[in-house]
Amino acid sequence: MESEPSIFDVILNQRACRQFRDDPVSDELLERCLRAATHAPSAENLQPWIFVVVREAQQRRALGELCSQAWERGGRAHSEDRLPAPLFRDVDAAAQSGFETAPVFIVVCGDSNVGLAQTLPSSVFPAAQNLLLAAAGCGLGTAMTTLATAFRNELMELLELPSHVLPLAVLPLGWPQRPLGPPKRIPFQEKTYRDRFSSPW
Amino acid sequence: MESEPSIFDVILNQRACRQFRDDPVSDELLERCLRAATHAPSAENLQPWIFVVVREAQQRRALGELCSQAWERGGRAHSEDRLPAPLFRDVDAAAQSGFETAPVFIVVCGDSNVGLAQTLPSSVFPAAQNLLLAAAGCGLGTAMTTLATAFRNELMELLELPSHVLPLAVLPLGWPQRPLGPPKRIPFQEKTYRDRFSSPW
Repeated sequence: MESEPSIFDVILNQRACRQFRDDPVSDELLERCLRAATHAPSAENLQPWIFVVVREAQQRRALGELCSQAWERGGRAHSEDRLPAPLFRDVDAAAQSGFETAPVFIVVCGDSNVGLAQTLPSSVFPAAQNLLLAAAGCGLGTAMTTLATAFRNELMELLELPSHVLPLAVLPLGWPQRPLGPPKRIPFQEKTYRDRFSSPW
Repeated sequence: MESEPSIFDVILNQRACRQFRDDPVSDELLERCLRAATHAPSAENLQPWIFVVVREAQQRRALGELCSQAWERGGRAHSEDRLPAPLFRDVDAAAQSGFETAPVFIVVCGDSNVGLAQTLPSSVFPAAQNLLLAAAGCGLGTAMTTLATAFRNELMELLELPSHVLPLAVLPLGWPQRPLGPPKRIPFQEKTYRDRFSSPW
């Protein structure tokens, strides 16, 4: 078994991937990622997450269509003047096509019968982040997207979700079409304070 | 330099820590964790996170007091009959004392001037999870808590936060008082569906 990448290598090099090679992703790899997701912390350890792994071509197309509609009807206009041009082109091409090159989507949901509605985001997004990191640790590409949740009702209908299961994120997943460069981040020193907001780190 | 733990070792063994040894945590280690946090994905890569690292004794006591008040006034009654007895005893002891053994708290906030209010949770909780994983990768203990955010105004006043910086989680952090056992998790198969909710994994 080849050695696994270190936690810091994976975290510091994580980057959104939106274009994928035409290669399938095995159940075994997805299961590694899903197992990692379910080891996240959650309020009262209630584990109110639900994952819908979408590989069926027709479901993928319908899901991609919701992403692209959300993009056309508001996302693009909102982002066009705000994103750096290369990032905008990347996102625009992927969202417009409904992430059509992704062989898998994982829809991450919160179960409001299991966790309190107000604690779902703090309980479910850490699990989604574990999933993204585990995927990166396997060499897979992913991205955290929430665009499609703008069409919550349509998304719930498509996935046959009962009313207590709320979709919170849609993660396209697959083998990256090209190597991803290093992520661009503002230094933590500009985001960190000591004891109180009047005292920068 | 000793070898870093693998991404899967850290993720699969992450567990909440609520009792800490009386040893300080260096700036260097905190900076590793904060750097990891700032490498999380965020909507439009806007990075709307803010971290307030609280080590000053008086600020820690005041912050702990908010946690314990939130616990006394609602958290305990809500959790008492729902949590397994050993977990409840652990949480109760730690929350009642305001996590008094923690040498550091990191308050994770969202900046609504930088990110849209509705995308703050999806942009900030992945960063918080990165921080927890990085801490675990360094041998530190932490827990994701949101109790104190029930007293948002008091918390904002204590940390001198401007109105656009919203506290979303409070992470006590330090060296674990005792080794943490393996986390208890529901198998992912019970939380996962294939293509639609009518089709279990």
